[in-house]
Amino acid sequence: MSTDRADPIRVLFAAPAGAWETYREALPRAFDAAGLDVELSRDIPPEAADYLVVTPKGPIRDFSPFTRARAVLNLWAGVEALVDNPTLTQPLVRMIDPGLTQGMVEWVTGHALRHHLNTDLHVTGQDGIWRSHVPPLAQDRPVTVLGLGELGAACAQALAALGFPVTGWSRGAKAIDGIRCLHGSAGLETALRGAQIVILLLPLTRLTHNLLNATRLAWLPKGAVVINPGRGPLIDDDALLAALDAGLGHATLDVFRTEPLPPDHPFWAHPKVTVTPHIASETRALSAARAVAANIARAEAGDRMDGLVDRDRGY
Amino acid sequence: MSTDRADPIRVLFAAPAGAWETYREALPRAFDAAGLDVELSRDIPPEAADYLVVTPKGPIRDFSPFTRARAVLNLWAGVEALVDNPTLTQPLVRMIDPGLTQGMVEWVTGHALRHHLNTDLHVTGQDGIWRSHVPPLAQDRPVTVLGLGELGAACAQALAALGFPVTGWSRGAKAIDGIRCLHGSAGLETALRGAQIVILLLPLTRLTHNLLNATRLAWLPKGAVVINPGRGPLIDDDALLAALDAGLGHATLDVFRTEPLPPDHPFWAHPKVTVTPHIASETRALSAARAVAANIARAEAGDRMDGLVDRDRGY
Repeated sequence: MSTDRADPIRVLFAAPAGAWETYREALPRAFDAAGLDVELSRDIPPEAADYLVVTPKGPIRDFSPFTRARAVLNLWAGVEALVDNPTLTQPLVRMIDPGLTQGMVEWVTGHALRHHLNTDLHVTGQDGIWRSHVPPLAQDRPVTVLGLGELGAACAQALAALGFPVTGWSRGAKAIDGIRCLHGSAGLETALRGAQIVILLLPLTRLTHNLLNATRLAWLPKGAVVINPGRGPLIDDDALLAALDAGLGHATLDVFRTEPLPPDHPFWAHPKVTVTPHIASETRALSAARAVAANIARAEAGDRMDGLVDRDRGY
Repeated sequence: MSTDRADPIRVLFAAPAGAWETYREALPRAFDAAGLDVELSRDIPPEAADYLVVTPKGPIRDFSPFTRARAVLNLWAGVEALVDNPTLTQPLVRMIDPGLTQGMVEWVTGHALRHHLNTDLHVTGQDGIWRSHVPPLAQDRPVTVLGLGELGAACAQALAALGFPVTGWSRGAKAIDGIRCLHGSAGLETALRGAQIVILLLPLTRLTHNLLNATRLAWLPKGAVVINPGRGPLIDDDALLAALDAGLGHATLDVFRTEPLPPDHPFWAHPKVTVTPHIASETRALSAARAVAANIARAEAGDRMDGLVDRDRGY
């Protein structure tokens, strides 16, 4: 127990300088609030560090000297850049931040309603022409959410609460109130064939890389909309562009293989693509710091940490 | 019971050609879904028609030849043009469409999120510039709903469910779970001074005419957004334009003193105004068709139809 320790808990902050500016005040406040006696620093000898707070773009490449570390806590939800590091044998924890989930729900709901209501028609068409097209009700607009983790499940439930019939798909079987849950290969085809709006919230793994390829994009009904706030490589970019030219309705993309998306990338110029700059789910420092503190408190008490990564699954 | 009938139920569609285009597919789908064996046509001999689907502007003036008709089902909520027809002695049913409230909730939620997330920035700014502005969470975006009738209350609750702190205002005191309810003159000032998004869903009466005038618009914080899906004359148009020029953030307007809004009206050209063509709450073919099918199923089962008109009251 931390209260019995003579020494403070030593937390090494191993993330880029910008992250330090964001967290140098938020983390100590969160540790204090959690009743933890912590020494937070960017300069702790590897063998003395009790915990590591990292981002995938942080400075540590070799985690093997951190022999004492009880956990590596990632400030981001995505761990794909860390999980394959063979030197990282310590328990790895991904960020589960309630603010991050809430922000994702707002962005996904906003863009699903934007496409459902076709508000772009009015936002870009203020030309004096009274275009009285009335959209169907949400109950007649089937939505499919690919990925039923924390973010996918929360978005699926928010959309269902607004009246959309929501199908969720995940690799393994899941059950969520009010959501038609499908899984496996056959389930994926059913989920895509019935979707007018598809939302990608899968983790990026070997199995989900280019998941939305030409074959699967062809399963979507004509006019369907793809919304990707998950990970860029979940979609085969060239196949998406071809599908849009062949009758897919629109793609709203928040994540890309290269970010910022280069100005000459065809997504920017395509009339059926809306690029947003990786803002769907942005970690807010205060709530992320509270999540880190809560997990260190759990580990110190011998409890299971939230967001502990399963190395075999990859997330 | 329909399942015992040898012949299909004969439904005469007696509404203008535009309505036929809208309902020719929606009605058969709704009949099928309700398990009804229906022949739907615009050409059924009067004495053979079991039901009539009409609008007040439909072609039938003399209903007396329809001796077999068990009901006349109006596609509109208003029956004032039908109820005084002395030849219409069959049971008359007005449209009760739950889709009207649902449609309003979807439109209001969609436009509230559009402004909250500032999606217009991206929809109109696909120019290769990575504008990574992250909006606050909904919990930090106070919304005020003016009017707490059926529509206002439903919208307020949908926005609260998404995390917005919602204040509702009505002339008399009301109480709604999860909504801060204010009323009266002092309540209106409080409701407007604290609002970043204001939604107008008041009925139009002498007391609400020009309710949002120059004085009250000045109570709104700089950058606030006005959303009006209620009635056009709730806002003083000239005062609104002046307020927008003085620092009000945006106005999204679905209703106007004159509709369609004339092409030369300054609302169309103003960069801070989005005009939508009175679509926030519109009867949808699919839900209206389901309401018609449900009523025919009720009549066939000997049950009372929803929206049966009381000839003495007139509605």
